[in-house]
Order: sequence, then structure tokens, then C-alpha cells
Amino acid sequence: MTELERLRAQLREFATARDWEQFHSPKNLAAALSVEAAELLEHFQWLTEEQSRSLAEDKKGEVAKELADVFLYLLQLSDKLGVDLLAAARDKLIANGQKYPADRVRGSSKKYTEI
Amino acid sequence: MTELERLRAQLREFATARDWEQFHSPKNLAAALSVEAAELLEHFQWLTEEQSRSLAEDKKGEVAKELADVFLYLLQLSDKLGVDLLAAARDKLIANGQKYPADRVRGSSKKYTEI
Amino acid sequence: MTELERLRAQLREFATARDWEQFHSPKNLAAALSVEAAELLEHFQWLTEEQSRSLAEDKKGEVAKELADVFLYLLQLSDKLGVDLLAAARDKLIANGQKYPADRVRGSSKKYTEI
Amino acid sequence: MTELERLRAQLREFATARDWEQFHSPKNLAAALSVEAAELLEHFQWLTEEQSRSLAEDKKGEVAKELADVFLYLLQLSDKLGVDLLAAARDKLIANGQKYPADRVRGSSKKYTEI
Repeated sequence: MTELERLRAQLREFATARDWEQFHSPKNLAAALSVEAAELLEHFQWLTEEQSRSLAEDKKGEVAKELADVFLYLLQLSDKLGVDLLAAARDKLIANGQKYPADRVRGSSKKYTEI
Repeated sequence: MTELERLRAQLREFATARDWEQFHSPKNLAAALSVEAAELLEHFQWLTEEQSRSLAEDKKGEVAKELADVFLYLLQLSDKLGVDLLAAARDKLIANGQKYPADRVRGSSKKYTEI
Repeated sequence: MTELERLRAQLREFATARDWEQFHSPKNLAAALSVEAAELLEHFQWLTEEQSRSLAEDKKGEVAKELADVFLYLLQLSDKLGVDLLAAARDKLIANGQKYPADRVRGSSKKYTEI
Repeated sequence: MTELERLRAQLREFATARDWEQFHSPKNLAAALSVEAAELLEHFQWLTEEQSRSLAEDKKGEVAKELADVFLYLLQLSDKLGVDLLAAARDKLIANGQKYPADRVRGSSKKYTEI
């Protein structure tokens, strides 16, 4: 059992023990994930990029909790939909490599539709 | 090397090969992650919860790509901040267990501040 | 002076009095607006659609504050960019009418790219 | 009839003509608003703050459309909930003035809970 599988199993158990399956439709989980992603962003919204590169330790601890929240919802939503998150990530990375060939996009942040 | 470590290494390589490190401040990655989370949510926004529980296969494929996008930014942001995502997730799950004791919150979706 | 112009003027004054112009780049305001929109969504994430149609009065008061937050950032960002928000909204409504002709999309929530 | 009231009336008519009321629960509108806010943010995510302060005209036109989308959903959601958006905004601005007294927060972007 990998670490991810263990986490996934724990998350199922967590929801079942609380009878929360009823709230965990993919629609609701997607909303919750999006809300957590915004809470993560909130920590950075008034910082300069430079400041965001060197967070104080306590701030980093707060941010780590938000990263975890996003991750936990991501695992639950993937599980609910029967999506293999690691495989999907590998596929997407390959697709991105084709959409953004290194020699054509180097140093540019343009979207692939604008290259 | 675990699967997550491999992905993380590939993401670093991907960004370096394109000279994209300059754009990848934690602030920008947090914004990008939030944008991808919203693209994920967009697939569900007009569906009923019931419909979201039984997506057609092609729709599920689209959703899997968005899940992957969120995951890839989550890994990059964690890497950039030096946060161990799996450890953070395990810690958060334990903290959630204390904030939401099963016997007190069963069947309720209230926030812990409202319990 | 319309109500919107008065609000816009008050928001400028508010930011100036606090020396907050330095933080209010369009990039930062867009992030803040997105964060507020998520705080708004948070109120609805575990509700059924039915429940969301009949909020209790105190909940509605909380939601009204989040609507206001989104609106205040929207006004500030538009002001900063020199965009006439009312004119942009009118233009967009006309464009939407052309993208979604009533007789072709009646009762369907499909995106115009899928019609 | 003010401009805002006119827009609100047009939005009602728009939804009715398409039989879209069924999709426009407050929950769904809040999700849609959040998605549009993220599309707005997407335009800024890889820009520096400096770049975001001086958008090219065509980019500004694109951004204006996203501002309009956010506004249209904001008006619809407020209307659906029976919230007077202008009054809510005025109340919030007064409350913000009390939470962030100018002489205590000048030049600081700290949240009021951290002041």
C-alpha cells in the first residue's frame, strides 16, 4: 500500500465515521477544493512575489495546512470519481510537454493558444 | 524514490528546461492553483449533485485533466516552499479528527466554529 | 453623481487614507476578489440547492457581507483599470444574447461551445 | 429606474427567456461567480504587479469582459437572495472603516485579526 492509498483509505473512513458521504458529492467536493485553494491564495494576496519566496516559519506552517486541505479534497474527489490521480498527473505532464515545447516557449509565460 | 518524488523531479526539470522558474514564485503558483481549481469546479457548476455522481466517460476524462492540473501546481508550490505535502496531509487529518469528533458531528456539515 | 460613482470615490479615499495604493495593483485586486468570491461560495458548499434558495435571515446577513466584499473589489479593480463596469456589463449581456440564442438553448445549461 | 435596476431586470428576462431559472439556485450562482472571478485572475497570474498596472488595450478589453461576467453573476445572486447590493456595499465600507482605522493600519496590509 502506497502512502497515497493509505491516505485515501483514511479519508474514506473519516467521512464514513461522520456520516458525511451524503455531503461529499463530486460537485460539493469540487466547490470545497476551490474554497481551500482560495484560502491558500489569501496568504499570498498582498505579498510581493519576492516576499512570497521567503515566508517566515510560522506563516509557512499556516500555508502548509492550506496545502494539506487542498490535497485532502483532491484525494477525496479523485477517489469519488474513480480517477487515478498519479496516472492523470503523469499523462498531463506529457501533454503539457507537447503543448509547450521547451525550445518554443523558453522564458515566455504565454498560454499555448497564444504561442 | 516514490512516485511523488519522481513527479516532483520531473516538474522541476520541466520548469527549468523552459526557464519558467522566474514566473513560479509561490504567489503566482498559488494563483495558478486557484485558477485550475475553478476550472475543475466549472465542470460541475450547473450539474445537480446527483448528476455529478455519475459523469459520462468523456466528461470524466476532462475532469481528470483538471484534477491533474491542480495536483501539478500543488506539488510545485509545496516543493518551492519546502513543505512535505504527505506529512502535512497526515497532520491535517489528525487535527481534523480533533476538531470534528465523530460522535459530535455525525451527519452534520456545520463548521467546527459552529458546532 | 450616481451611487456607483459615489462608492468608487469613497473606495479611493479609503485606500489613500491608509496608504494602501501600493498593495492595490490590478494583479493583487484580482486575487483578493477571487478570494472573496470563494468566501461567498463557502457559505453554500455543503447546502443543497434547495437549502440555498431559502437561507435563514442571519445566514443571509453573512452572505450579504461577502457579496459586498466582492462588489467593493470589483469596483476598485474596474476603477484601477479604467473600465466602465456598467458599460462592460451591458456589452457582455448583448454578447451573451448572441452566443446563447433563446430558441436554441432553452432549458439547456450547455456551454456555447457545446451547443 | 437606476442603471443597476435596469440591468437586474434585463438579467431576469434573459434567464426566463432561456428557462434557466432552474439552474440559477444561489448555490450554483455562487459557484459560477467564483469561476468567473478565477477567469479574471487568470489574466494576471503570470504578470508582475508592474505589468498588471499597464495592460495593453486588447488585454484590457478581455479583462473588461471578465469583470462584466463577475458583475452579472453578482447582480443575479443578489437579486435571487433579495440583497440590496449597494446598501450592503455601503454598510461593509463603514464596517471596514471601523475594523481598519486609518491611523492604525497606514501602510500595512495585515489582516484586522493581526493588527
